[in-house]
Amino acid sequence: MVVSEEQPPAVEGDAAASKKAAKKAAKAAEKQQKKAEHKAASGQVQQEASEPDVSEGRYGQLKLIQSSGEHRDRVYTDVKDLTVKLNGQSVWVRARLQTSRAKGKQCFAVLRQSSSTVQLLVSVSEERAVSKQMVKFTGNITKESIIDVYATVVKTATPIESCTVRDVELVAAQLWLVSPARAQLPLQIEDAARPEKSDDPEALKIRVNQDTRLDNRVLDLRTPANQAIFRLEAGVCKLFRDLLTQRGFVEIHTPKIISAASEGGANVFTVSYFKSSAYLAQSPQLYKQMAIAADFDKVFTVGAVFRAEDSNTHRHLTEFVGLDLEMSFKHHYHEVLYTIAGTLTDMFRGLRDQFAAEIATVGQQYRVEPFKFLDPPLRLEFPQAIQMLKEAGVTVGEEDDLSTPDEKLLGRLVRAKYDTDFYILDKYPLAVRPFYTMPDPNNPKVSNSYDMFMRGEEILSGAQRIHDPDFLTERAKHHGIDISKIAAYIESFRLGCPPHAGGGIGMERVVMLYLGLDNIRKTSMFPRDPKRVTP
Amino acid sequence: MVVSEEQPPAVEGDAAASKKAAKKAAKAAEKQQKKAEHKAASGQVQQEASEPDVSEGRYGQLKLIQSSGEHRDRVYTDVKDLTVKLNGQSVWVRARLQTSRAKGKQCFAVLRQSSSTVQLLVSVSEERAVSKQMVKFTGNITKESIIDVYATVVKTATPIESCTVRDVELVAAQLWLVSPARAQLPLQIEDAARPEKSDDPEALKIRVNQDTRLDNRVLDLRTPANQAIFRLEAGVCKLFRDLLTQRGFVEIHTPKIISAASEGGANVFTVSYFKSSAYLAQSPQLYKQMAIAADFDKVFTVGAVFRAEDSNTHRHLTEFVGLDLEMSFKHHYHEVLYTIAGTLTDMFRGLRDQFAAEIATVGQQYRVEPFKFLDPPLRLEFPQAIQMLKEAGVTVGEEDDLSTPDEKLLGRLVRAKYDTDFYILDKYPLAVRPFYTMPDPNNPKVSNSYDMFMRGEEILSGAQRIHDPDFLTERAKHHGIDISKIAAYIESFRLGCPPHAGGGIGMERVVMLYLGLDNIRKTSMFPRDPKRVTP
Repeated sequence: MVVSEEQPPAVEGDAAASKKAAKKAAKAAEKQQKKAEHKAASGQVQQEASEPDVSEGRYGQLKLIQSSGEHRDRVYTDVKDLTVKLNGQSVWVRARLQTSRAKGKQCFAVLRQSSSTVQLLVSVSEERAVSKQMVKFTGNITKESIIDVYATVVKTATPIESCTVRDVELVAAQLWLVSPARAQLPLQIEDAARPEKSDDPEALKIRVNQDTRLDNRVLDLRTPANQAIFRLEAGVCKLFRDLLTQRGFVEIHTPKIISAASEGGANVFTVSYFKSSAYLAQSPQLYKQMAIAADFDKVFTVGAVFRAEDSNTHRHLTEFVGLDLEMSFKHHYHEVLYTIAGTLTDMFRGLRDQFAAEIATVGQQYRVEPFKFLDPPLRLEFPQAIQMLKEAGVTVGEEDDLSTPDEKLLGRLVRAKYDTDFYILDKYPLAVRPFYTMPDPNNPKVSNSYDMFMRGEEILSGAQRIHDPDFLTERAKHHGIDISKIAAYIESFRLGCPPHAGGGIGMERVVMLYLGLDNIRKTSMFPRDPKRVTP
Repeated sequence: MVVSEEQPPAVEGDAAASKKAAKKAAKAAEKQQKKAEHKAASGQVQQEASEPDVSEGRYGQLKLIQSSGEHRDRVYTDVKDLTVKLNGQSVWVRARLQTSRAKGKQCFAVLRQSSSTVQLLVSVSEERAVSKQMVKFTGNITKESIIDVYATVVKTATPIESCTVRDVELVAAQLWLVSPARAQLPLQIEDAARPEKSDDPEALKIRVNQDTRLDNRVLDLRTPANQAIFRLEAGVCKLFRDLLTQRGFVEIHTPKIISAASEGGANVFTVSYFKSSAYLAQSPQLYKQMAIAADFDKVFTVGAVFRAEDSNTHRHLTEFVGLDLEMSFKHHYHEVLYTIAGTLTDMFRGLRDQFAAEIATVGQQYRVEPFKFLDPPLRLEFPQAIQMLKEAGVTVGEEDDLSTPDEKLLGRLVRAKYDTDFYILDKYPLAVRPFYTMPDPNNPKVSNSYDMFMRGEEILSGAQRIHDPDFLTERAKHHGIDISKIAAYIESFRLGCPPHAGGGIGMERVVMLYLGLDNIRKTSMFPRDPKRVTP
């Protein structure tokens, strides 16, 4: 394809025009490319008289990749693998054009693949058959477009500080537009990636707000921090599952569509189910307990849970990923409590060791303290927490739950006293826990239940469950629950069930708090809240 | 606790009576146990004059395990670990009483833990201080109750063929009821576990039908086959994720609540969403593609998908677990096709090697042929399939989809000709595929799409997707899709997107067909169909 002043590149302009131009360009490019390949093969690269362009057939818009079989054997190199070892060699690279700056006979560009970047130079050269037109074409490619370049790897005289690949750059011999991005992007990656605590006062003005990010999530997700966050999030799930599998747990899958609200009637979404209606599960609670009654002994499940809470806070989503587990024990629920806490501690260690690069990348945008934890983890009992808060001037009743500000304050007090961002708070008042929570054997106002905290925010709630059907029925009635609606659940315990305990973890919260981020929407790829169900 | 003729054990009788009796029993047992422990400790075990019972304090109903701290340090042995190495040693075992048969001074019982069973003998003995009353108590315990036994491991003279532990049995010295099962069970485990193709004509009469099983799923899940099926199912998910992670894929989570039906309007569940309404995702399709446009390169996701199809067949569920993946490629979608097929082949190999015991256990109830596969896997093109069917006397138009009977016949033909239960059928007619499917570059009636089959049934559907926004818009309109409802999806491709392909797998189908089972409800722990949303 030949780009002239009269005909701007296909990637600019409005959609309809761009489509036409793209088709035309694709056809032209295909023709040129075939011609060029033929010529190259026969060693007869010649300039055409009408429009002398030494780069003909070496650049342009590639036709739509439709798996025709062309270029099937071409080998590509990843940006992160470009090192001085390849100095002088020619490679094919497919990457996004992050930025470009054409000036006379040269165009400097930055290519990006996920979080890796490298400098590309397209420079008029007889030797490499790079024409003025080809340089201009490169300069006109819209940011975020995907291109193929055939280039020589060249060791740089001084390190390129603005790229992740610093010791080499690419010097182009061919350049093809694979997939153009629109000219007017709804946000700029460099703005979305700008450090939050930059000293530059200008940076504040061009900050991209949360809604703009989420409305244009595909672009927003391309920032280095987001690339790292969601890779670490995959690591959280992998570590959770692997660590539990090593401990003898079995993965199960529990239904999301249920006939009765699992935890009382509040905050539940209703689904039209053929001629009737059903609900979306607020947790896998009843089902993982039924799996215990069904002899699976130790189970975990990772899946969507739904909360119809109209809470527009930094830490609530209407749909999130639950990391849930349940485990039978022999005589004391601390067998389970320490299994969970040990799993989390091993997970924190795994994240620290296996995702150091991702944590560092996130740290470049959001400056946070490393996550601190103790091994074995710290366990406090509820009265100790009340006492610590009292000493700090906050009064909490012994049968009250902690408010969010109380929890945060307590997190700071624990951090100051014990130097840990993770701890267990055990023995909650019975009154503030769900009906299936086992009371303490010695104090009817206390329960065998616990929360776990990261940086002062709750990430897990758990307890020993009541495995005696009559006692469970009594407690459910006490909570005003319609027994007929949980009949199958209660029936499970009439079939013989071992004592058991477990917990439910909010995955997005773990990622948010491990990284010290300020909003759970940063750790949900396509977050859902009362106001957002799109994209 | 002392059991007399006048007072039947607490585990029988109706619920209210049982509760009272249980409480009484628990208190009595506690008292007795404490006394016994005290006596044992002080070496003063004596018979009481009123009711001489040498086993006092050595059996009875244990009080509700509420984590009091008692017996915390007691070490338990797993049934599967009972071997001749432990001959002569005393161990604590917690297990279900599967069956018991008391006769005079002896009671033979079978204890079960998941799929492992061992014989227990409770026999009147002065030496072990086992009384007639204790034997009787054991004989009266209801099937499926959970008990603790303290027993000596004894090598058997001849192998016990009816148990999985054959070389040793347990001889009881203490026996405590931990959690009683109701006397009238809705189904018997031995009936639910009966081999399907038994030669015994009696077996047919006492078969447990599917609905009875599912209505009482907690009991049904305790059969050895079900214990094995769901452990293998966990293996399917683990292998899928691990094999893809090794290949550089990143796990993502996609929303289940969406604002517009992802694949056209049919068969979608509606959710009340605060003051508005939303839908349940029929697949993660649009989101995994958006993750590709967002530079995640290769992604997978495991999660619930929902289909509001009123199909009451052996292979349809309204909610199932999708194993989905999507991957960018350079020039040909076969890069992806062979990545998926290779992952599945490695998964089959992993199941065969790591789950041999589970496969054998399932085989004892449902006799099936081992699953056959080739490496590299077999790929056929649609016209080849048409030709094979034609030779077998079945005519299929070149632009038609295959019917389920056609697929099954084709599966048999492929098995006969190529000796494989797994194959890929490539190059489906464009007309029968979704709007986002990339057409073949050389034949507008054909598409770059494929299904994969196990034992003649489809388990995966996939394709190269259209990554050009204008072409995609054109195809969506052709399919009558309201463009405004998928605006965010189409917009993704205006931001530059690499060519990509992927596929979606039904997890329960993979397990069903790998094991050669006849109904998908056998591989969903709590299945959902148009008629079932409970338990």
